[in-house]
Order: sequence, then structure tokens, then C-alpha cells
Amino acid sequence: MKIALINPNSSGFMTEAIVAAARNVAPVDVQLLGLTNHAGPSSIEGLIDGVHAAPGLLDLIARHDDDVDAYVIACFDDTGLDAARSLTSRPVVGIGEAGYHAASFVAARFSVVTTLACSISILQGNLTRYGLAGKCGSVLAAGIPVLDLDNAEIDSLGMIGLRIKQAIEMDGAEAIVLGCAGMASFSNQLSQQFGLPVIDGVASAVGMASSLVRMGVSNFRAARVPTPLCAQLGADRP
Amino acid sequence: MKIALINPNSSGFMTEAIVAAARNVAPVDVQLLGLTNHAGPSSIEGLIDGVHAAPGLLDLIARHDDDVDAYVIACFDDTGLDAARSLTSRPVVGIGEAGYHAASFVAARFSVVTTLACSISILQGNLTRYGLAGKCGSVLAAGIPVLDLDNAEIDSLGMIGLRIKQAIEMDGAEAIVLGCAGMASFSNQLSQQFGLPVIDGVASAVGMASSLVRMGVSNFRAARVPTPLCAQLGADRP
Amino acid sequence: MKIALINPNSSGFMTEAIVAAARNVAPVDVQLLGLTNHAGPSSIEGLIDGVHAAPGLLDLIARHDDDVDAYVIACFDDTGLDAARSLTSRPVVGIGEAGYHAASFVAARFSVVTTLACSISILQGNLTRYGLAGKCGSVLAAGIPVLDLDNAEIDSLGMIGLRIKQAIEMDGAEAIVLGCAGMASFSNQLSQQFGLPVIDGVASAVGMASSLVRMGVSNFRAARVPTPLCAQLGADRP
Amino acid sequence: MKIALINPNSSGFMTEAIVAAARNVAPVDVQLLGLTNHAGPSSIEGLIDGVHAAPGLLDLIARHDDDVDAYVIACFDDTGLDAARSLTSRPVVGIGEAGYHAASFVAARFSVVTTLACSISILQGNLTRYGLAGKCGSVLAAGIPVLDLDNAEIDSLGMIGLRIKQAIEMDGAEAIVLGCAGMASFSNQLSQQFGLPVIDGVASAVGMASSLVRMGVSNFRAARVPTPLCAQLGADRP
Amino acid sequence: MKIALINPNSSGFMTEAIVAAARNVAPVDVQLLGLTNHAGPSSIEGLIDGVHAAPGLLDLIARHDDDVDAYVIACFDDTGLDAARSLTSRPVVGIGEAGYHAASFVAARFSVVTTLACSISILQGNLTRYGLAGKCGSVLAAGIPVLDLDNAEIDSLGMIGLRIKQAIEMDGAEAIVLGCAGMASFSNQLSQQFGLPVIDGVASAVGMASSLVRMGVSNFRAARVPTPLCAQLGADRP
Amino acid sequence: MKIALINPNSSGFMTEAIVAAARNVAPVDVQLLGLTNHAGPSSIEGLIDGVHAAPGLLDLIARHDDDVDAYVIACFDDTGLDAARSLTSRPVVGIGEAGYHAASFVAARFSVVTTLACSISILQGNLTRYGLAGKCGSVLAAGIPVLDLDNAEIDSLGMIGLRIKQAIEMDGAEAIVLGCAGMASFSNQLSQQFGLPVIDGVASAVGMASSLVRMGVSNFRAARVPTPLCAQLGADRP
Repeated sequence: MKIALINPNSSGFMTEAIVAAARNVAPVDVQLLGLTNHAGPSSIEGLIDGVHAAPGLLDLIARHDDDVDAYVIACFDDTGLDAARSLTSRPVVGIGEAGYHAASFVAARFSVVTTLACSISILQGNLTRYGLAGKCGSVLAAGIPVLDLDNAEIDSLGMIGLRIKQAIEMDGAEAIVLGCAGMASFSNQLSQQFGLPVIDGVASAVGMASSLVRMGVSNFRAARVPTPLCAQLGADRP
Repeated sequence: MKIALINPNSSGFMTEAIVAAARNVAPVDVQLLGLTNHAGPSSIEGLIDGVHAAPGLLDLIARHDDDVDAYVIACFDDTGLDAARSLTSRPVVGIGEAGYHAASFVAARFSVVTTLACSISILQGNLTRYGLAGKCGSVLAAGIPVLDLDNAEIDSLGMIGLRIKQAIEMDGAEAIVLGCAGMASFSNQLSQQFGLPVIDGVASAVGMASSLVRMGVSNFRAARVPTPLCAQLGADRP
Repeated sequence: MKIALINPNSSGFMTEAIVAAARNVAPVDVQLLGLTNHAGPSSIEGLIDGVHAAPGLLDLIARHDDDVDAYVIACFDDTGLDAARSLTSRPVVGIGEAGYHAASFVAARFSVVTTLACSISILQGNLTRYGLAGKCGSVLAAGIPVLDLDNAEIDSLGMIGLRIKQAIEMDGAEAIVLGCAGMASFSNQLSQQFGLPVIDGVASAVGMASSLVRMGVSNFRAARVPTPLCAQLGADRP
Repeated sequence: MKIALINPNSSGFMTEAIVAAARNVAPVDVQLLGLTNHAGPSSIEGLIDGVHAAPGLLDLIARHDDDVDAYVIACFDDTGLDAARSLTSRPVVGIGEAGYHAASFVAARFSVVTTLACSISILQGNLTRYGLAGKCGSVLAAGIPVLDLDNAEIDSLGMIGLRIKQAIEMDGAEAIVLGCAGMASFSNQLSQQFGLPVIDGVASAVGMASSLVRMGVSNFRAARVPTPLCAQLGADRP
Repeated sequence: MKIALINPNSSGFMTEAIVAAARNVAPVDVQLLGLTNHAGPSSIEGLIDGVHAAPGLLDLIARHDDDVDAYVIACFDDTGLDAARSLTSRPVVGIGEAGYHAASFVAARFSVVTTLACSISILQGNLTRYGLAGKCGSVLAAGIPVLDLDNAEIDSLGMIGLRIKQAIEMDGAEAIVLGCAGMASFSNQLSQQFGLPVIDGVASAVGMASSLVRMGVSNFRAARVPTPLCAQLGADRP
Repeated sequence: MKIALINPNSSGFMTEAIVAAARNVAPVDVQLLGLTNHAGPSSIEGLIDGVHAAPGLLDLIARHDDDVDAYVIACFDDTGLDAARSLTSRPVVGIGEAGYHAASFVAARFSVVTTLACSISILQGNLTRYGLAGKCGSVLAAGIPVLDLDNAEIDSLGMIGLRIKQAIEMDGAEAIVLGCAGMASFSNQLSQQFGLPVIDGVASAVGMASSLVRMGVSNFRAARVPTPLCAQLGADRP
């Protein structure tokens, strides 16, 4: 089976890093295809970047729909996720969504540590729509821009760890979801340091997408797009 | 005061119709500026259209921010609403959002009648995020594409009326929100026919936007956009 | 159009202050009529005062229903709001309700600063009924009785500001709703001091009421009062 | 112990009926004192009646606070309940509130059958505030005014039974709460006819009130009334 | 009337203590029968103990169903509660459930103080299912194992008091529910010390159970157990 | 990796069927170990059976914890799930839980079709605890006992199909979750017949469990069991 990992931003370097991280946790029979959204912004930091990333993201899906079995949208804001599900009948999984759901299987309450504060209300809005806000203690920002996560001069691990400590003490968090694709490589070390599950969304999404493919499950909503059919559905609904 | 009515689709005809409908209900000192998103699709029927409309919509806001005092996004899906609020410090009001809130002031429970079934889950997702899902009996589709609402061969009023009757009988609806900018002209007639408030989102949004301008209220989130400030906020948050 | 501002307490001085504050933010074609509830208590500080204020408040509505186009109930507890809506077909807007809804248009999360702690659970109960509790970080009391807000010996602005600071730091509040009609004059100064929208309920309510009048929207529930009709409705409901 | 059963309306006949019904289910050591609100309306059918009933209801409590150990407010709308709790430190229990809570102990999902449709949204609002809306399938109106419940020409049992049948079939209701003090005498017969618990609010409230008295529990909120103390609380809260 | 107090653990000493505490608050005509689950663990500290306690608990119910009128499950986790309700048509009341509901009658917001942190997520899950999570400020652990509550070397009152203080200051708690059957004897003293209602679940449950018996109310779900009937119900449901 | 599929009932035949169904959808590197709970009842039809199944289920986990990497509890009621998570640090996934979460990735709203009506309130309670009740249109019973699903004289597919039709028409369901391990083999055929995703919980759980193992994620709660540590946690929590 082949799963496309769509990086909604234009950084080919980040695409490679995401594919490499995913490779470590993907089932052996899963082939991973990294797709960079060259039409998108260089990083996605807030909703404006998300708007500029989304059309190119949909184009990538339209162009690869004969090639692949499922898609992962590798941005923690789950940019364009619902629209993508209207475009293709193949499963599409967001890394934010997948991380929150995965955490629900190992913890009664989790908290999220993301990069910058401008993402907090985006993620809280998503959690509410997904029904999982009640399981989330808080969404905290480490104060590190996405592109600085690997900057050797910034103690990213330390800054994220500070928020994890706070989540454990204040929220009673039993698991942490790392709120950025660029934090994937930190999960194991942080999990050992703090003695609780630290969940990476990319790995969660690859696992969920491959599972949906094996189950032969497709998107219902894909069938809703063409206007005549949509009108038809409207007329039929009670 | 000047309020921009942004039509996220490319139909200048629809922009004019929206401005005309809004004119009837706007305060006398409110100047309305219709903005057509020429970069957008011809109508917005579902989330894919929404993705293609959003970048042009943000461009319109960026280009008119010195000119106008507030924005109304005249698409019932509230396309690009949160992103627009990150871009400008001036109030931005979506017509879906405004219609639901207005209905809450005159009814304990309301239902929504929209055009096509492909919008149902979009609107339900928005109602959940806005906190008003508990006040909404149901979201029903009349089965009419946006561009056919004024088609003389289609009994639009009759088809919408059928859903209103169903909402009253099944949901105990005390008000109806019309779920499309193109239905604005129907609200008075339907209100009289069914004896309950029938709310138009465009009128609701113009009222709310002008009220926010008079109060001198701006968007907090605008301040969050620049990355350095955003990083700063992240570091400061407890 | 004429909007009645009902002050549910017996202080004519406060009525005048409320009308004056509202005058600054009302549309030019809106005539404001201040109505003092001479049968009510001298201030409304908790639910017992509310009970004693409500009958006089309904009397005022009954006596002015041929005169005015809409009503604003100028008490942040929204005293008698639902009952008033059963009495008249004209829009009735509470200043608490209006303030919370207005805040939802400019902030993903808001907090409320009210006068005394005895109001906290009243306001929390209202927020739950309105569906907006999930958007409210917390309801905080400044510790100032209503009638002392203008007392020159009390640093009202400072005491309110302390709670605003707390709401920003602890709740991540992006807007503040001032929880008392008597705080209307403080909103601009506090907004500038803290760099986020500080919302006054009176202004919000006047804006919403005038907007509902322009839309020609009336209350559904008025029709429910007469017993025979009410019985009829009962028999008809599925 | 002595429990006051407050009938918020002015019908002494109904007060006697309520006391008689309560007598059958009260513990032997509980003395019941029926209090008629002579200052109230002849029946409480909707919120306007509730407003006119509330001041007299509070007067009754103030006058009997040395005499009795707890209060039951015998109106299914729970008229004046929260205000009464601010007035006295003795337990005050509403019959609506008590009925819903009692149903929660014997059924995963219950429905409510009340008199007239004008009460539906009042009861739904209460259920939301109490946190029990999610356990309530629906609130249905039998279409019978309170004062006609005992009218021999009306088949009250039959009309209520029709709604019970509907609640079982449509809502999956496992228990029914009878939504009017005047229906107390019907509960046993309906319970046998439909094979599920049919709960009377008066009996539920007497049980709960006597239990709270035995436990020596008083109202916290009573302490909040005096303004100086209230201001104090405000200043102390974090 | 006879109410069985089931102690799900095997400590006869604790059963006696529970019956003695309940005796003080039970109505005079209520006979209390203490039942010790000799097949259960020595104390119930978390879900594994709960699993091992439940079969014996159901056996006790099956063996005493001709003898008694109602059951109280005297473990604050409400171990086996729903299953017990499927087994018998007599009311079954859990002490956790009863404590939360009782607190709702005297406080707008309550917090829970339990023994050990391993119970926190169990109790939070229960509160969510009962619909009362929104009324609960927090669930706090005093850090004392059940069997040490009476250990003279441990300052149980002081440790519980510390959490009560925290709940008042941080949650705005207006009442405290003591989250363990073994804390019953502390409620009066703590209530006086902190000036707010401190609720014991055992007393709450005995009150509720006796009230349900007086009302003649039984469990609907008992009827659902036999498979043929259950299948039948399945076929009948709409 | 090795995943244990625990059949909480004593039917070895059903264990084999579950393993065979899972085999078809499991990743190639996943070894499946079927474990039959010989101490459990012959089928699990309601909560009483669940109570009798749980101790044996925990024993199976205790005995195999050195052998396997994760557990799937193959009963749609998620019997013993939370207790199992307290016992082992290895991931434990319930098939009900996994089915609901999987459905959330392909549909905005899903409904559940289970065997008998006695399971309806169990599943609704679970959905509420998991946060996914708002995504579930309804839980419907096909009216077929578990052990009759393969009975050639019963048209199981037809009876389940009837409920699916109802869910699509009444709930607007976009996906169906099959609410019983014994229905696994029906999912593909029903999916094709009704043109929407029909989700099998066993396949969903195997996918999720294997994904959690690959991510190296363990249960936080396991650490909470030993009393001294639990007491310690209690003392440490803020």
C-alpha cells in the first residue's frame, strides 16, 4: 500500500524529515510518498498561512489520486482536512486529529504542546469539533517558531519540557501530544524523561491511515461533491 | 462608517444582489461596499470551493484595510472567517455566524434551511465551534443549488417552505435561519407565511458589524500574526 | 426607531447614565427612551433583588408596547429576560446576553469581570443556558458594589484592571466583557490599557436590538402566552 | 422535622392536594406545612406567571424561616428556586429539579410530560442548567391547562398516556417525569400501564429535602447575600 | 422498609462503620442491613479492585432480593452500579452518584476530595456519564489510602482540609463531596471548619434510596435482561 | 509484534472467528494470539455478563504480559477496558472504542447498529465518556442475539440492513459502526449495499493497537496501581 505524506508548506527539507520520521514507525508493507506543496508558504504559522497552503494541497491530492491509497496531511492545524475529504474517496488523516485520537487510547486526559501561541485557539477549535476538548487539559505553546525547532542555539527540548511539566502539574495530564510535525523526533526522549506517553501526530496518522486502507474503508463525503448529486441528496433527506 | 460586503465567489451579479438586500436593512449612516472575489469560484458549494475562494478573499481584505471599518463575509459557510480575523484588526463578521447569534435573541431553539446537503456537515461543524449547536434543532437542505435560487422554473419558496414546516413540526423550531446569502429576499414572505422569525444572515451580519464599529471594538487576534510577537506570546503564557 | 432602555432598579440617576452611555454608540436614527423601574430595588445585587425587580419591569413593557420598537434590559443578570419575551412580540435584548454574543465575534475566548461575587454563579448559569460557557474562561468579581463604581474614594478602574490582568494570564482571555451596566464608561480606557477588546453590554444590546428592528424580526414566544393557544400548541406538537 | 410545601400560586385547593399527595410518600417523622402564595397568580402557566409569583414566594420563606427545616417549591418550572436559596440557609428543593434527579437514579434516559407547550422551553432551559439535558429524550406537552387536570370532562390520563407512548417509542425513554405538581396522583397508574417508572416531582422533592435536613446540610449561597460580605468575597476570590 | 448497605470489599469492620454512620442519618422507619462482600478485595483502590469486587456484589443482591427494598453500593467509585440495576427491579443507589446529586441541590459548583490519585479519572468519568461534570470544579486526592483514614498517626482531617481549602480558592467550590465511604464521620466537623456544606455519599444514598422506595419506583432496566425480551425490544424500537 | 485478541466470553469458536476476521486486515508483521476467557459467560449480553467476564479477562492479561505487545478486548461493550489499562503498561484497545474513533476519520456523523436493545444504554454511556456522543446519530439494535448472528434461519444481514437504512434516513449517518465482534464478516457487503463506510470494531482495534506498539507508546495509568505510589501521586498533585 502507498500513503502520501503531504507537507502543506514548501520546505522540501521538512518533507524529507517527516518521511524519515514516519518511516521508523510505518508497517513494513507501507510505501511512503512525500509530497511537498511548492505552491504553499515556507511554514504554516497560523490561519493565514493555512489559507495560502490549502489550494496547492488539494491540487496534490487531485494529481496523485490514481497513485496512492491514502493521504496524511502533515500539519498539526489539520489544514484543509475536511475539504480534502470532499475531494477524494481515499482516507485522509490529519496529524492533529490522529494525535488527539491516539492519546485517547492511552490516557484519560492529555495536554498538547505546540510551537507558538497563535496556534492555540486553532487547535482548541479543532478539539471542540472532534469532540475531544473534554479530554484535553490545555493547549500550551513552547514559544518556538516551527523553523527554529532544529536550531542548535535554541534549547527546544528544554522549552517543550517546561510545558510538559506544567501540563502534568496543572492539568493532571496523563499523556502529551506534540503539536507540530517538526517535533516528531523528540517524542521518545521526552516520554522517557517525564514517564508518560508523548505522542507524535505523524506516526499516529500513518498508523490510522494504513489501518483504514486495510479495512477497505473510504470517505462517504466524496460522493457529495458533484452538484447534481448534492441537490439530489438534499431532496432525499427527511 | 463603511462596511465591505465580501462576496467570496466571482459572481458580480450576486454581489450586487447582496448589497441591495443589505441596503434595505442597514443603518442610514452605513456605507456599503460590495467586493467581488474575482479570483474565486462562480459559486461556493462545499468545502473545495471554499478553499479556492479563501486566498482571494484575504487579498480583498488586505487591499481595502485602509478604506473600510469592518468586513462581512457573505457566504453562509463562513469561509475564511477565522483567517480573516488574523489578518485585520477591524471586525470581520460571517453571515452564518451572525444569523445563528441573531436567532438566539428571539428563539429558544432554531433550525437552519440551506441550499444543498453537502453544506449540512459544514454548518453543523460551525455551530459546534460557536457553542450554538445545542440551540439548533436541525440543519436541513432545500435541495436547490445557489445559482438556481432565482430560477423562475424552480419553486424555491415552496421547497424552502417544506423544510421550514418540517423544522417546526419535528424540531419545535421557534425561528428559522436561512442558510444562504442568496435567500435574503425570501425572509419576510416566509416569516409571514409561517408565523415565526425567519432570519437572513446578511442583514444580521451588517447589523453586528456596524454595532462593533460603533463600540470601537477591534480583533484581538490580529496582534498575534507576526511571528516574533507570536513567539513572545508563547513564552509569556502561563 | 425607538428603543426603550429599561433600568430594572429604581435609581433614576443610573437610568440617565445608561442612556447617556448608550447615546454615544447608538445609530443616529435610534431614539432612546430611558425607563426607570420605580417599583424595583435601589440596585440589583443578586437574585433576590432580581425577583423584586421583575414584576415592575414587565409592567413597564406592558405600558410602553405601543410606543417603542424594542427593549433593552439594562441589568447584567438579564433579569426577567425570558419572561419579557413571552409578554411582547417586540425584540427584547439583555445586556449580559448581548455582551457575551458580541465578544464571540472578536475573540475565541473571553472572560467576564463583574461587581460582586454573589453574581458569579448567576452569570455562569446564564452562560450555560446561552451555549457560550465553553467560550468563557472565567467570571471574576472586582469586589465593588454597583453603587460604588463611581465613588471617587474607590479605585474602580484599578480593581477591575486587576481582574482583567488575571483573566489574560490565567484564562488566555482574548476579550473582556464588563459585567455591569454601571461599568459602561470604563470600556475604552481599559481596552487601550490592556490591548484587547473590552466589551460593554449596554452598547452591545442597543446595537443588537436596533439590528433586529431593522430586520423586522419579532419574538416567536409572544404567541405562546394565551392559554387556549398554548393548549392548542401542546395538542399539535408531534 | 418540618418541611414547608410552598404552592407558588394562590389556589388553596391545589395546596391541599399537593400536601395530601406528599403525605402519602413522606417519612413518618416529617411534618408537612402547606403554604399558599396568596399574592401569586391563580395558576403558573409560563414565565410571566412565574415573575408574578416569585416575590410572594420569597415572603413566605422569610416569614417561616424560624419554623421550618426545609422548603419545597411546588411548581415544576422551579420558579424562584435560585433566589430562594440566596435568602435562606435551609435547603430549598424544586419539584422539577428533584424529579429530574430522581429519574437519573432509575433510568439511563428519561422524558418529561408537562401540561402546555409554553412550558417546554422553560423546562429545557432548566435541564441544561442542571446538567441533565443529555439524559432527557424530550419534553412533551399533553395539551392540558393545569387547572383542567382534574376536569372530569377531559381525559387527562389518556392525553398524558399518549405522550408517554410517544416518548417510549421515539426517545427510548426508560422513565417518565410528570411535569406538573397537579399530576402527582397519576404516577402509580401510569407506571403500571406503561411498565416503566413514572416519577412525581413533589414526592421526589420531599424525599430529597428531608434527606438534606437529616444530613445537616445547609445552603452555601445564603452567606452571599449581604452586600459587605459579598464585596468581601469578591475581593478574596483568586 | 429495609435497605441493604453493600460494602463491596471484604472488611466487616468497614461495613459496621458504614452502617453506624448511616444509622445516624437514616429515617426512623428504615432498617439497615449491612452486607459484606467476603468474595471481594480488602479495599477498593482503583479499577482492578473494582473488577474483583463486582461478581460478589451481584451475588449479594441476588441472594437478598426477597428480603430488602433497595440497595446502596457503598463504594465511591460506584462499582458495579449499572450492572446491579440490570439484575434487580429494586432501586440501587451508588454513594458517589448520590453525593454528586445531593451537592447539586445546595451548591452551584462543588468539588470532590477523594483518597488517592488513582481514583481521580474514575470519578471524573462517572461525573461525565452522570451529566454533572460541568458542576464539578475538580476532583482532588488527599493522598491517604482508604485503610489509613482512621490511622491515628495520620492527620486525615488536616490532609483532607488542605484539599478543601484549595477547592474553595481555586475552583470557587460552594460545597465539597467527600469521595470515600470511610470519610463519612468527618463531614460535620469539616463543614463547620470551612463554612460550606460537606457532603457524605453514604448519607446521601440512604436518603435517596429510601425516597425511591416510598415513591414506589423501580428500575426499568431490570426488565431488559432476559434475552428473548431484549431481542423483542430491539425489534420494537423505531 | 504480537497482539492478543481477548474474547471475554468462553466460546472458543467465537475466538477463532474473531482471529480469522482480524487476520484479513492485520499488517503482515502482526502475529495474532486468540485468548478465550474460559472463566467467562458463553456470550456477553448486557452488563451482568460483563461483570462475570471481567476477572477472567484481567487474569488472561496478567498471564500473557511477558508474551505480547498489546491487547484487544473483543467485546463491543469495551468490558473491563479501563481496569485492564490499570493492570498493564502495554496498550489495550477496546473494539467499541476503536470502531467509534475510526468512524470519526471518515464521517462527520455515524450511527451504531448493535445486536440487542439491552446494549443501547451501555454503548451510549461509553460514547459519552469517550467524547464522541455528539458525532453519533443513534445506537440502534438489530434484535439478534450474538449467538444467532450466524444462524442460517435468521436473516441477520437483512435485519442489520434495516437499521442502517433507518440511520441514513433519520440520522443523516455518513458511516455505520457494527456494534458486535460477531458482525465483522458483514462489513464489506453492507458497505457496498448502502454506499457508505461500514466499520468493524475488531479490524479498527487491531489497526490501532499495532500502531500504538510501533510508536512505542505505553499506558500512563499502569504506574498508578501500587498503593504507595498512588498515595504519593495524591500528595504531589496540586
